[in-house]
This record gives sequence, C-alpha cells and structure tokens, in this order.
Amino acid sequence: MPQHSSNPVGRPRAVPREDATADPKEDILRAAASLFVRQGFGGTSTRAIAEIAGMRQATLYYYFSGKDDILRTLLAETVRPSLEMAKSWRVALRGGQDAAVVLYRLIAEDTRILRSAGRQVGALYALPEVWSGNYPEFVEEHAVLEGIYSEVCELLLARTEVTFAIEARQLGRLCCQLAENAYLFSGPVQTVADTMGCLGLRLNGVPDAAVEFARR
Amino acid sequence: MPQHSSNPVGRPRAVPREDATADPKEDILRAAASLFVRQGFGGTSTRAIAEIAGMRQATLYYYFSGKDDILRTLLAETVRPSLEMAKSWRVALRGGQDAAVVLYRLIAEDTRILRSAGRQVGALYALPEVWSGNYPEFVEEHAVLEGIYSEVCELLLARTEVTFAIEARQLGRLCCQLAENAYLFSGPVQTVADTMGCLGLRLNGVPDAAVEFARR
Repeated sequence: MPQHSSNPVGRPRAVPREDATADPKEDILRAAASLFVRQGFGGTSTRAIAEIAGMRQATLYYYFSGKDDILRTLLAETVRPSLEMAKSWRVALRGGQDAAVVLYRLIAEDTRILRSAGRQVGALYALPEVWSGNYPEFVEEHAVLEGIYSEVCELLLARTEVTFAIEARQLGRLCCQLAENAYLFSGPVQTVADTMGCLGLRLNGVPDAAVEFARR
Repeated sequence: MPQHSSNPVGRPRAVPREDATADPKEDILRAAASLFVRQGFGGTSTRAIAEIAGMRQATLYYYFSGKDDILRTLLAETVRPSLEMAKSWRVALRGGQDAAVVLYRLIAEDTRILRSAGRQVGALYALPEVWSGNYPEFVEEHAVLEGIYSEVCELLLARTEVTFAIEARQLGRLCCQLAENAYLFSGPVQTVADTMGCLGLRLNGVPDAAVEFARR
C-alpha cells in the first residue's frame, strides 16, 4: 500500500532521539520500521538505522544479526497479536456468534492492534522483500490470519444475494487489508476502527441497517 | 499491497528471453517492473535488469540514464491511460450521468487498463521509493486520479444513509486501490474488472439491486 506522503518524518540523527525509550531494541525496531517504509528495505542500511536510533552501529549488532533479523522481528511482532485475537473470534464464530458481528470485531480490533503498534504495519507489509521467501514464518502466520477472515466471509456470502463473481478467500483478503491500510486514515483510532469494520461489512454485501446492528 | 506469492517468476538470464519483444526499451521496462515488485527497488541493480532483459548493461544505458529513469517511465506509463479515461468519465458525470454508473465504469475500466499493462502496477505503486519525493509528476497525476474517484464518491455519499464516519476522499482512495489491487485476483480480466466495480459500489453503500443496474 502506498505511503501517500512525501514528508519525511525526520532526518537521520547521530544523537539520541527525544522519543527514545529505555529499551535499545525497541528504539532499533522503531527506527528500522520508519526507514523501511520511507525508503525501502534495500535502500536502508544498518548504519542509517543505528543513526536514527541514536546509537553506534556496533551496539545495533549486539541486539540483531542484521537487517533480515530486524525485519523478521518486526513482522513476527506485528502479525502475532492480530492472529491471537482472530483465533479467539474463530472460537466465538464456531460457537454460534453472528458472522457479521464477528467480522466487524475482527476488523475493528485488528485495526486497533495495528495502529497501536505505531509502525505503519500496512506499509511494512507492502515491501516486496517481505514476500520474497525469506520470511516463511510470517507468510505462514499471515495466511492463517487471512484464512480466519475468509471463514467469516464465507458465512456472510451464503447470506447475501451475490450477483457477481467473488470468493470468500478474496473477500477475506480484502477485509484483512482494510485493517492493514487503516494507517492511511487520520483521526482517533476508535473512529478509524469503527469505519474499517463498517466498510468490511459493506464489502460483504451486509446492508447498512444490519451494519448498524453488528457494531453495537 | 503485498505480493502474496513467494514463487519467483524466473531466474536471471544472460540470454535473450523467449518473450522478448522487438523493442529493447519495452524489454527493459518489463524486466525492471518484474524485478522491482519481486525484490524491491533498492535490491535491484541495472545489471540484473539488463540480464533479465537479455542485453548488456551498456545497451540498457543507451535507453535509460539509470534505475530512477526506468521507474519514472514505468510510473508515467501506468498512471496516464487511467487518468485520461477518468477525465472523460468526469465529463460524463458533470453532464448528468448517474454516479453509480460512473464509479462502476471508472473502477472496471481502470482495472482493465492496469491488467493490460501486465506489470503488476499495484505492486509497483506499493514501493516506498515511489512516494519518496523523487517522482513528483507521478504523485501529482495520481492525486488528480484519486480526486476524480472522490468526486464520484461524494455524490454517492450524499445518497446513502451513512451511519459511520467516512469522507468522500477516503472512499475515493479505497476505490482507486481496488483497481490497483486487482492483480491479486486471478481469472479473466472481464470478470475481475466487473468484480472490482461491484465491490467499489458496495463500499459506497450502494445496495446490490442498484449495483445490478449500474453494471449494465
């Protein structure tokens, strides 16, 4: 997903950031995510990451073996909380909870999780390198997450009078992407999460009156 | 938008491709697009592009001044036909054509244009480098395209009983992205274009019965 902004967040700094945390590892992850989504994975050096994180390059290598290791950590950290959340909603779905309610919750809570990570996760997922085959664990976990979305969409598809060619798997992917693209929307996280949940239901052909019910 | 596939299209070749065209410039653009979306802009060298295009690096430099020049050409080529198409639909809209019909056509025709370009345009647009500030002409043209989408969505928003916070600008962006993400859907281009048009109308709260009317 494009990063529709040409305003760089800041210039590389050799001194510690004002927003530095007490955790150097966290500082590295934040700096790396910010650089990866601004200038690409290939265009980012560990030296640049260390500079932005306000530390020497040698310190970075104390915590990570290199760029691959940093991206792997970022990817695992971002997909896992969403996956845990989705698994618990799958249990609710199989226990009889309404599919529209479940889809709304999935998207809204996923949006909140991804926004709270504060790392433009959607933009991170858009990097070609993420899908290059070097991060199979992430690709696998993300596929499971999309599968849960698709399971809910399948139930909703059975309800609507579908008049065009669409599969549950495709709808699931698009709904999953709504949460991942929420970083493009400004406003309070609660409002954006609600918007994304409602849009996901609309994509599935749920009439607005039923959307109103599902979000309660 | 992620490229949800870990299957490389092929290995770099030093000999001319079987699918080589009579136009070396076209061969370079195809090879570059394929590499950029598979391994990132930063991770792609002009040497690798020349190898895939089946020519020597010096030949590549006869046609392009470098990677930036190639990406600039690719971006201009992909956004302009969509923009011309959208401008003619804006004329129809202002002349009184139904907004639902216009949005369906915009998305469906945009999908066909992007698919026929055969360069995974959506994945190309997802590269962070595209939005880095180095391609202001493309960013400007893409903003105009999104603006046309938003103008149509604004008319549709006025019609539906919107029960959640969404702006025409946001809906316009999401509809524009539907066409750009169509490369993730397999199937005949006509079917995918129809699906994307219908999904765009759904996102705008157009009931399925009215969707049926708009796509005729």
